[in-house]
Amino acid sequence: MESKIDISDHISHRYNDELEDLRNQVMEMGGLVERQLQDGLKALRKSDMTLAEKVASADDEVNAKEIEIDKRCTQILVRRQPAASDLRLVLAIIKTINDLERVGDEAEKLGRYAIHLHKKNTYIGDFTEIKHLGNHVRTMLSKTLDAFIRMDVQSAIATIQSDDEINEEFDSIMRQLTSKMMEDPRAIKETLRVLWAARALERIGDHAKNICEYVVYLVKGEDVRHTNLVALLEENPELTDE
Amino acid sequence: MESKIDISDHISHRYNDELEDLRNQVMEMGGLVERQLQDGLKALRKSDMTLAEKVASADDEVNAKEIEIDKRCTQILVRRQPAASDLRLVLAIIKTINDLERVGDEAEKLGRYAIHLHKKNTYIGDFTEIKHLGNHVRTMLSKTLDAFIRMDVQSAIATIQSDDEINEEFDSIMRQLTSKMMEDPRAIKETLRVLWAARALERIGDHAKNICEYVVYLVKGEDVRHTNLVALLEENPELTDE
Repeated sequence: MESKIDISDHISHRYNDELEDLRNQVMEMGGLVERQLQDGLKALRKSDMTLAEKVASADDEVNAKEIEIDKRCTQILVRRQPAASDLRLVLAIIKTINDLERVGDEAEKLGRYAIHLHKKNTYIGDFTEIKHLGNHVRTMLSKTLDAFIRMDVQSAIATIQSDDEINEEFDSIMRQLTSKMMEDPRAIKETLRVLWAARALERIGDHAKNICEYVVYLVKGEDVRHTNLVALLEENPELTDE
Repeated sequence: MESKIDISDHISHRYNDELEDLRNQVMEMGGLVERQLQDGLKALRKSDMTLAEKVASADDEVNAKEIEIDKRCTQILVRRQPAASDLRLVLAIIKTINDLERVGDEAEKLGRYAIHLHKKNTYIGDFTEIKHLGNHVRTMLSKTLDAFIRMDVQSAIATIQSDDEINEEFDSIMRQLTSKMMEDPRAIKETLRVLWAARALERIGDHAKNICEYVVYLVKGEDVRHTNLVALLEENPELTDE
C-alpha cells in the first residue's frame, strides 16, 4: 500500500512537472516572440539592418518551439487524459502557441519592411505614431504573457479591452498615411510599407487579445470570444472579482 | 456477457456518432463560411448593398458555430478520452474551426469594403484581377473542405502548394494598385479599399493552407507546418502515395 501511494505520488508529481514544464515552455516561446517584436521595432526605428536581417530570419526558432509544445500537449492528452481544468490548460496552450506563432510571423514582417524601407532611404523614425503604436502593442503583449502565467483574469480582461485603443490608433495612422500618400504620390510605395508595418502591429494586438480570452476561459470556464465584454461583465460581476 | 457487449457496442456506436456529428458540424460551418465568401465577392463585384449588409452582419452565426463545436470537442475529450487517431481528429477540428472563423472574419470585411466602395461610387467589377483572385481563393477553400471531409492527403498537399500562386497573384495586384495610386492620387482612398479586399482574399488562402496542413497531420501524423513541402515530399514519397 505504502509503495502504491509512493508510485501514485510520483506519477502525480511527474504529471505536475509536465504541466509546469509546458507552461514554462509557453513563456519561453512568449519571450522569444517578445524579443522578435522588440527587435523588429528597433530595426524599423533605427533602420538597423543587422537587426532587421536577424528578425527576418529568426522565425524558425519560434516555429520549432510551436511544433515542440504542440507535440508535448498531444502526448499529455494521450498519456494523462487530463480532466476539467488541466484539460482546459492544455487546450488553452494549444491555442495560445498558435497565436504566438502568428505574432512571430508579424514581427518577422517588421524586419522585412525595415529592409525595404532602408533600401529606399525611408526612415520610419519619422513616424512617431508607429513608435507609439509599437510601444503600446509591446506593453499589451507583455501584459498578456503576464496574465497567462499568473492566470490573472482581471488583468486578461483589462488587456482585452485595451485592444480597442490599439485599433483606434491604427485607424488614425491609416488616415494620416492616406493623406501623406495623396500629398506626395511619389512616396506611395514607401508609405504603403509603413502602413503594412502598422497593420502588422495591429494584428499582434489581435493575437494578444485572443490569448487573453483563452486565459479567461481557462480560469473561469467561460468562452468570452465574440462576446460583448462590457455586457458580459455587467451580467457577471464575479468575472472580475478575483 | 451478452448485455455487456451490447452496451459497449452501444457506447462505441454513440461515440462514432459523436465523432461523425463533429465532422458534419465542421462541414456545416465550412459551408457557412463558403457562402460568406461567395456573398462577399458578389457584393463587391455587383456593388450589391443588400448582400453586403448581409455579409457584414452574418458573421455571428459562424462565431456561434465555432463556440458550439469547440465545446463539443472539449466534451468528447473529457468523456471519451480518445486515443491516437481520434484524438488527432479532435485536435485538428479545434484548429480547423479557428481558421474557418477567421475566414469568416475576412469575408465579413469584404462586405464592409463593398459598402465603403459603393458610397464612393467605385465598382470593384473594374478590377478583373480581384475577380480572378476571388475565384481562385473560392476554389482553394472548396478543395480544402473536400480534402478535410475525405481526409485526402494528396489533395491537401496539392492545395497547400496552390497557396503560392495566390500569393503571387496578390503581389501582382499590389503592384498594379500601387501604380494606379501613383497615377491617380485622388483615388488613393478607394484604391486602398480594393487593396485591403485583395489582402483579405490572400489571408483566406493562408487559412485554407493551414487547414490542409492539419489534414496531413491528421492522416499521416506528420506536422507539416513550417516545413519545405517540396523537400519533405522528396524525402517521404509515401506522403503522396495514397
